[in-house]
Amino acid sequence: MLDFTYAVLTKILFGRNTIDRLDEEIERYADRILFVYGGGSIKRIGLYDTILKILDTGDIDVVELSGVQPNPRITSVRQGIQLCKDNNLEFILAVGGGSVIDCAKTIAAGMYYEGDPWDLFVLGDSTIRAALPLGTILTFAGTGSEMNGNAVISNQETEEKLAIHHDLLRPRFSILDPTSTFSVPKDQTAAGTVDIYSHILEQYFSPTKDAFVQDRLAESLLKTCIQYGPIAVAEPTNYEARAQLMWTSSLALNGLLGYGRITDWATHGIEHAVSAAYDVTHGIGLAILTPFWMEYVLNEETLSKFIDYAHNVWSVNEKNDFATAKRGIEKTREFFTSLEMPTRLRDVGVKDTKLDELAEKTVLYGTVGKLKKLGKSDVLTILQNAY
Amino acid sequence: MLDFTYAVLTKILFGRNTIDRLDEEIERYADRILFVYGGGSIKRIGLYDTILKILDTGDIDVVELSGVQPNPRITSVRQGIQLCKDNNLEFILAVGGGSVIDCAKTIAAGMYYEGDPWDLFVLGDSTIRAALPLGTILTFAGTGSEMNGNAVISNQETEEKLAIHHDLLRPRFSILDPTSTFSVPKDQTAAGTVDIYSHILEQYFSPTKDAFVQDRLAESLLKTCIQYGPIAVAEPTNYEARAQLMWTSSLALNGLLGYGRITDWATHGIEHAVSAAYDVTHGIGLAILTPFWMEYVLNEETLSKFIDYAHNVWSVNEKNDFATAKRGIEKTREFFTSLEMPTRLRDVGVKDTKLDELAEKTVLYGTVGKLKKLGKSDVLTILQNAY
Repeated sequence: MLDFTYAVLTKILFGRNTIDRLDEEIERYADRILFVYGGGSIKRIGLYDTILKILDTGDIDVVELSGVQPNPRITSVRQGIQLCKDNNLEFILAVGGGSVIDCAKTIAAGMYYEGDPWDLFVLGDSTIRAALPLGTILTFAGTGSEMNGNAVISNQETEEKLAIHHDLLRPRFSILDPTSTFSVPKDQTAAGTVDIYSHILEQYFSPTKDAFVQDRLAESLLKTCIQYGPIAVAEPTNYEARAQLMWTSSLALNGLLGYGRITDWATHGIEHAVSAAYDVTHGIGLAILTPFWMEYVLNEETLSKFIDYAHNVWSVNEKNDFATAKRGIEKTREFFTSLEMPTRLRDVGVKDTKLDELAEKTVLYGTVGKLKKLGKSDVLTILQNAY
Repeated sequence: MLDFTYAVLTKILFGRNTIDRLDEEIERYADRILFVYGGGSIKRIGLYDTILKILDTGDIDVVELSGVQPNPRITSVRQGIQLCKDNNLEFILAVGGGSVIDCAKTIAAGMYYEGDPWDLFVLGDSTIRAALPLGTILTFAGTGSEMNGNAVISNQETEEKLAIHHDLLRPRFSILDPTSTFSVPKDQTAAGTVDIYSHILEQYFSPTKDAFVQDRLAESLLKTCIQYGPIAVAEPTNYEARAQLMWTSSLALNGLLGYGRITDWATHGIEHAVSAAYDVTHGIGLAILTPFWMEYVLNEETLSKFIDYAHNVWSVNEKNDFATAKRGIEKTREFFTSLEMPTRLRDVGVKDTKLDELAEKTVLYGTVGKLKKLGKSDVLTILQNAY
């Protein structure tokens, strides 16, 4: 096991009606806040009105930043920073899925950075020295942003989608009420499940050999996705399925699986290049790319991990080791297909003439992946295979 | 899944030489501290000198409370409170295993309670309103006290061993260096492994049916104990085995497995009565009692959980369900025996004439257990079977 520092300070309020404690949680930090959300969905499900009522009762002043889009843009971040500065706001409440939360985190960090907030992504995490406190109300299970310090933002001018990570960006609290995800459409529920699954895989497929407990924990969370993803898609108001996925999304990316070992993240790197250029839903991009990444990196050296995966997650036992490993990959593809995910990049509008540029963008800041380090030609092959 | 609030605020510094960050962690809170430890073992392994040197470099004033015993006593707690009051100390550093940490926690809570600290155990957790901050340096993997808000203290006058729980008692930081456990003797290493294993079982054998992710996580940690317990016993300086057990001890009882469901804790309740009267090592008491508790509570209603346990943890599949369940219990007993744990209460000095009184003590404040609620006659039967 590698050395690590575990500091997961986010308080989780999990269950029905936990939103009732929103004002008391915010009041620990501020009485003037930025309320960040996306489109109209939180108005449709009545959450918007509930929140404003609670904030009003708690005498908390609110400035709104709405219209944050999936694959959130640096332009929204700039807008949010301006609102906080103009109105002297001291706390950010993000209500939505990962996009809204990531936008809020970047506003929080950008408040203490003198230059343009996109610099944070280009210059790296050490540029972050302070951040406004933030809290979240989660309406979509997938990104895990509700319990970690990661944020992914797109820049349409440069066609880039980059990430920052800092413990200062972990939400102080997150309200997880599974009923808030009842109205998430089937395709988005499926994409969220794939996103959770992929987060687990990115940490599971590690070059660190000694990570027994982390491996077994990862397999637990993978099995939970396999068990409850299809149920949530088929029965959107099944509380238990929504609850299991929601909590798994948080545990999958809060540090539990990653601390103590090196993690991979190649598939996310490639997908970010794709979805920066095409605005593909993140989970859909991952569903397409993951099995092709697996096939590409499977070799004598990585074989034992693929066997563990096939055995322990899929109970697969074929006549020889490589057959077992390949069956595990096939099972993964079948799982994503059962969730009605597309299987090819061409199905989501990607042009084959663009693949070379996507590979170039993926490795713009260096190779991606740790289980196997991937340079441009590796990434291009994966993209071509997935096309 | 039941509603829960997850707030695990303890920062973990895991790995070799993480003690080098001790002074910077303490300085966030205070510059006058109580340093609590047990017998001479931290002096033998050189940890005592290292700590004093670091504290001296950091200009941190230290008052010592030494001699805290296994099954720590309320008398040590009273002594610690007096020292803090007399010397105006603002932080407690506990260096040792669960006994030392539990003593430190109770001192921390007792500082803000006007009456005698034993009242906290009798009157219950709501009596705790504030606590001094504390940090730990762990030298023994087992109790999980390094990452939770629980403390168990013995009162020799009343022959009671009782627990308190409060988030205010969670250490602010815990330094987990697996090499600090290299010198733990074989029998104590084995007892610590059983303690971890039991903590997991107490939460796994839950009456809450919908706890899929918690169940799979629990099985992961059980498998880690089974994998690494025997290695740590056989090779005391095996870093990976010590590391896996150390981190598993923290994860087993920090809330991860228990939040979202009802937990049992009957075996701990019975064991506390036994070890309050006989000063038996906690893990040894648990090793004896656990299989007998399992046999007693196995019935039509609890069967499915025992089958999950037998299948998923021990890969057992017998010809019928009860046979499978019983084989899982037998596997548990064999595991403890392989760690050279005794199997009978009579082997650790318990007198059969005392069993009735032990049963009485166990249920002094009500029934124990949630999978099956146990009254005095149930407990007495388990004790008699285990005798």
